[in-house]
Amino acid sequence: MSFFEKKISGERKYSGFIVNVRKDIAEVQNGHRVVREVVEHPGGVAVVPVDADGNVLMVRQFRYPFSCELLEIPAGKLEPGESPEACARRELSEETGCRAGRLIDLGAMYPSPGFCEEILYVYLATDLVFGESHPDEDEFLSVERYPLDEICSQIMENKVPDGKTVFGVLKARLLLDRQ
Amino acid sequence: MSFFEKKISGERKYSGFIVNVRKDIAEVQNGHRVVREVVEHPGGVAVVPVDADGNVLMVRQFRYPFSCELLEIPAGKLEPGESPEACARRELSEETGCRAGRLIDLGAMYPSPGFCEEILYVYLATDLVFGESHPDEDEFLSVERYPLDEICSQIMENKVPDGKTVFGVLKARLLLDRQ
Repeated sequence: MSFFEKKISGERKYSGFIVNVRKDIAEVQNGHRVVREVVEHPGGVAVVPVDADGNVLMVRQFRYPFSCELLEIPAGKLEPGESPEACARRELSEETGCRAGRLIDLGAMYPSPGFCEEILYVYLATDLVFGESHPDEDEFLSVERYPLDEICSQIMENKVPDGKTVFGVLKARLLLDRQ
Repeated sequence: MSFFEKKISGERKYSGFIVNVRKDIAEVQNGHRVVREVVEHPGGVAVVPVDADGNVLMVRQFRYPFSCELLEIPAGKLEPGESPEACARRELSEETGCRAGRLIDLGAMYPSPGFCEEILYVYLATDLVFGESHPDEDEFLSVERYPLDEICSQIMENKVPDGKTVFGVLKARLLLDRQ
């Protein structure tokens, strides 16, 4: 069995800084026409930086949609034309000051495939070389180091809601356990 | 160290079926005023249904933003006033025909906390009782059954991009391994 939906028409409803919104009409299997709202997003990266002692570098920052601080792995949006790997190195350096000797692909993540085009490219970073962080002028965050085991325990206690952090840390953990 | 951002003003820029978009002005730590785009979303649930033989029930469906089929755990949006647990039971029943004897909380997931208010409440469903599925009229999907081990292998081979599926399946796997 194979599924498809055919785009009939589309209209840009909002153009913003991070997202645009499109409202399409699509034809589905039974010939009915339905509305498909699509949030357009440039995509980004997320990095699980693990140091030689098995600690993960995490960033704590205020997340406006939830009006609270969240503890997450370093992440950021792709610049136009930037490769995911270059973006991962840039964001890791900007947010934590680290350079990654080695980047290991943990796969692409679709955070909300029902309505949003966002793709996050997720990496494990090892062989870290430490330097100075240099966040954007209006970006405020603290870098915190936790044992990988402790983050995994927090995840299993349902204390880590950030999707990319759970995706990246659990995959990194299972991958490192095999080595 | 503690972080905050204070809302100065807000404007609704788009009102849709699934999402709304708000454009706020917020004051950050250094007194600067910045734009914060927020995608409003009603939230939803995702369910990892595991049968007595250790198989996961998955749904395959067309995902319009990516113009392709994806294999995902059953999921859906909260109705107004509906509790996450009631929504989990309803969506599981609609999409797979299953009733869950037992629902185990796998925590809340924020798919995109940088710009989107969406929260997904994730559950492990066991002690399944099978019946007839009854998807919405314009919803087309097939229910497929895979051994939990096989889905975990596909996740580790970076073949499962759906965020909630990786979040739910890996947490379910680690939880069941402990029991």
